[in-house]
Amino acid sequence: MLTVRHYRDVEAQTAAPGVTMRVVLGPKEGAPTFNLRVFELQPGASSPHHNHWWEHEVFVLSGEGVAYSEDGERPVSEGMAILVPGGVVHHFTNTGSAVLRFICLVPQEWLEGVRAQ
Amino acid sequence: MLTVRHYRDVEAQTAAPGVTMRVVLGPKEGAPTFNLRVFELQPGASSPHHNHWWEHEVFVLSGEGVAYSEDGERPVSEGMAILVPGGVVHHFTNTGSAVLRFICLVPQEWLEGVRAQ
Repeated sequence: MLTVRHYRDVEAQTAAPGVTMRVVLGPKEGAPTFNLRVFELQPGASSPHHNHWWEHEVFVLSGEGVAYSEDGERPVSEGMAILVPGGVVHHFTNTGSAVLRFICLVPQEWLEGVRAQ
Repeated sequence: MLTVRHYRDVEAQTAAPGVTMRVVLGPKEGAPTFNLRVFELQPGASSPHHNHWWEHEVFVLSGEGVAYSEDGERPVSEGMAILVPGGVVHHFTNTGSAVLRFICLVPQEWLEGVRAQ
């Protein structure tokens, strides 16, 4: 049985001022190991500057922005993928005039401390 | 340190007739648990009809197609996410006149048999 859903049919949660998150595929949908979320940042908005044990795998759907980390800032736009390793302090900022929309995937909580042998 | 790359800068592999795959974030980039790939299907092309232990999490970037499984077919288009659980026989077909482009994420091989307690 496949789960098929449009991300706009998922309720948006406020993740930060001007930032929404939709958990499109996660534990509720039966995803076993990682979750697919869609973020939308309004112009000028930023995701929280934070770090955590888990990695992010991001893919930019539309808009323009910057990925900040301890190494500085990197411009990001449609079609670009970003790997944020666990433990790296980071945030994203929308530097454009349209919504910055990206997918962000994370491993599920039970994977904390579980690594390839 | 972030890895930032455009998917078009990744070499495309032929996955099936009329189907290319790019491994944009994977073990070579230091992804620890799951891999982000971009698939492009030419009009009329299909991914192989297959099944495997791992799940797929798919997000459609552009184009129109159908996701087939034992339950029948489901239309898919831009902005739609699809969860294909492990063990489900499935394939995707481009039913439109433009390229069908989607992201497909999979857990890494070391996760076979590793599940939440």
